[in-house]
Amino acid sequence: MRDVAVIGVGETQFGELWDKSFRDLGIEAGLRAIQDAGITTENLDAVYVGNMSAGRLIDQEHVSALVADYSGLSDMHLPTTRVEGGGACGALAILQGWAAVASGLHEIVVVGAAEKMTDVGETKAMEILTATADQEWESVFGATIPGLFAMMARRHMYEYATTREQIASVAVKNHRHGALNPNAQFQKEITLEAVLKAPKVAEPLGLFDMAPLSDGAAALVLCPLEKARRFQDTPVQILASGQASDTVALHDRRELTTMDATVVAGKRAFHAAQKTPSEVQVAEVHDNFTISEIIAIEDLRFVKKGQGGPATEDGQTALGSKIAVNTSGGLKARGMPVGATGVAQAVEIVRQLRGEGGKRQVGNAEIGLTHTLGGTGATAVVHLFGRVN
Amino acid sequence: MRDVAVIGVGETQFGELWDKSFRDLGIEAGLRAIQDAGITTENLDAVYVGNMSAGRLIDQEHVSALVADYSGLSDMHLPTTRVEGGGACGALAILQGWAAVASGLHEIVVVGAAEKMTDVGETKAMEILTATADQEWESVFGATIPGLFAMMARRHMYEYATTREQIASVAVKNHRHGALNPNAQFQKEITLEAVLKAPKVAEPLGLFDMAPLSDGAAALVLCPLEKARRFQDTPVQILASGQASDTVALHDRRELTTMDATVVAGKRAFHAAQKTPSEVQVAEVHDNFTISEIIAIEDLRFVKKGQGGPATEDGQTALGSKIAVNTSGGLKARGMPVGATGVAQAVEIVRQLRGEGGKRQVGNAEIGLTHTLGGTGATAVVHLFGRVN
Repeated sequence: MRDVAVIGVGETQFGELWDKSFRDLGIEAGLRAIQDAGITTENLDAVYVGNMSAGRLIDQEHVSALVADYSGLSDMHLPTTRVEGGGACGALAILQGWAAVASGLHEIVVVGAAEKMTDVGETKAMEILTATADQEWESVFGATIPGLFAMMARRHMYEYATTREQIASVAVKNHRHGALNPNAQFQKEITLEAVLKAPKVAEPLGLFDMAPLSDGAAALVLCPLEKARRFQDTPVQILASGQASDTVALHDRRELTTMDATVVAGKRAFHAAQKTPSEVQVAEVHDNFTISEIIAIEDLRFVKKGQGGPATEDGQTALGSKIAVNTSGGLKARGMPVGATGVAQAVEIVRQLRGEGGKRQVGNAEIGLTHTLGGTGATAVVHLFGRVN
Repeated sequence: MRDVAVIGVGETQFGELWDKSFRDLGIEAGLRAIQDAGITTENLDAVYVGNMSAGRLIDQEHVSALVADYSGLSDMHLPTTRVEGGGACGALAILQGWAAVASGLHEIVVVGAAEKMTDVGETKAMEILTATADQEWESVFGATIPGLFAMMARRHMYEYATTREQIASVAVKNHRHGALNPNAQFQKEITLEAVLKAPKVAEPLGLFDMAPLSDGAAALVLCPLEKARRFQDTPVQILASGQASDTVALHDRRELTTMDATVVAGKRAFHAAQKTPSEVQVAEVHDNFTISEIIAIEDLRFVKKGQGGPATEDGQTALGSKIAVNTSGGLKARGMPVGATGVAQAVEIVRQLRGEGGKRQVGNAEIGLTHTLGGTGATAVVHLFGRVN
């Protein structure tokens, strides 16, 4: 099994991009990653695409071949594969690209991920997002994704005395980080009061506790670590990956305040990399809701169970602390183009490890982590990245 | 890179299975493959699922986690991944499972594929299938999947003097084979006259030139070849795989009568396995339409370009000939649960190589091939399988 490195990263602006199609976004991110890697398209051996619901959002399946085609690569007849796992599509695409390079099947691959959420309107987009939950046992009875995460929040408040202010402080922190990211959808700070007073979506969660439904794309170029310096002065190694599943329906889980898929995926990744959570300086975790980040930093063992709220409120996960969580702004402020999330997170971590984080650079970051969820936690993927010295 | 073997196969009945859900089908095929491998679910390390459009067909994304969950595996928190590439989903899932085992990431994986086509009605199902073509440049102008394949048929008749009877003879042969397959949707022979006189769908193609829209599922269990005999007396090796893409829109292709993706995928697979087409005794090729099989056996170099029609009419691809094509009945008679196709094809090839083909057994089959298409040929995947002596 060969070691694998990231030699190029690219992403689009995130937001309501009504003047750009799915194709435009996929091509833009992919070509930026290829340019960043200092390669040309002739160097490519395969394309992996993470995407959740193009079939419903833009009426188009088979998007992996489509992106290669509209990138002008059809003459190369590259192998192209789309992977899906709810919101974890992008993170799963990284895993397939990693396996292809690690196994020796391919040398240089592009892992792209894109989602075009805003063409169908918010009601329809939320309905489509709900198809990542259990349709037969949740959605048909009226459960929505915000409603399910609201139940987790209520239970977390009950079990660990987590306060509404602590939960809201996730949004305040991530907007503060997003204000430093020129590609973020919301580059604007918000106050704790604004989060608390926002209209309720599913109590206790309000509008500013939710990530937006966004358009956007991101891409990585991967190659064997031993070749990485030919292309890139600052390659970043994929140290290890962990993936885990759980019941799709929330009511079948052991508890509401822990996502076992995250716990297991994290353990698998740390074990494979022979690292510990305390060695991570920068992490992008799946904050589709504010409560998700609190549960994630606990389940990943960055803080003790039940301490996610106080730790966030105290600034222990903000830029400048021992660990910086969601320096990109996270899903909350960078934006949530669902299927693209995992790759967008990886782009941020690679930039941080290269020292290209700009105003939001984490000092001397050596090890970074991405954590991506599908549905309400039926899929979790954790990747660990390391600076190559 | 480790060699990989198939140690278990399973499939459901194929057809209009109104009393079975997507979940039922996926579980049934998967558990049969696990039983066939002589393992228990505790031996599993990961699940890969091929599926085209569950999002639109049953309103459910995230089906890889769903199938693991409803198979009772949620406590194991297995990594689960869905892959999609139009009709080639199943074949792509095999590739991801292969890469996971070959790379050393996992030891024993299940590759399942399922599609539930019939719950939405035929008009809706055809519309969903058309989303594997180029929606912005084909479908919106009225092109349908049957219409696009009909253009290929017309051009093939013009360029190579292929006759309507020769094209129809694909259906006659595959129904004859399907009549010997107890899991086939149509276990009934049809006459050449019946094919020719059937109502036209898109001229020159009629109702019996098209594969049905079916429900069904199939599954494989893969493990490293070196461990295969611990579980299975007759393991079958995956010798090599080839995958290629092309333009999504048919009108952008070099020609209408050759699918370059098939040509390239075939060459890649044969080159990697160091085999030639003449060494293959049994092949399952993607006969979603009769003309598709004619083009496929030419592009895979089983016959010369332009000779697909006469060769089929002469019985050169029927059971008992030098090469037997679509012994399962193919998509035409076994049925076409779109995303499940690639795995169903592999199940048939493994059975043939094990000598478990029953009434349709190919004598002394040593090397078998599967060929699977996405869309009108924007994706092609070729797998080569070999008996382990």
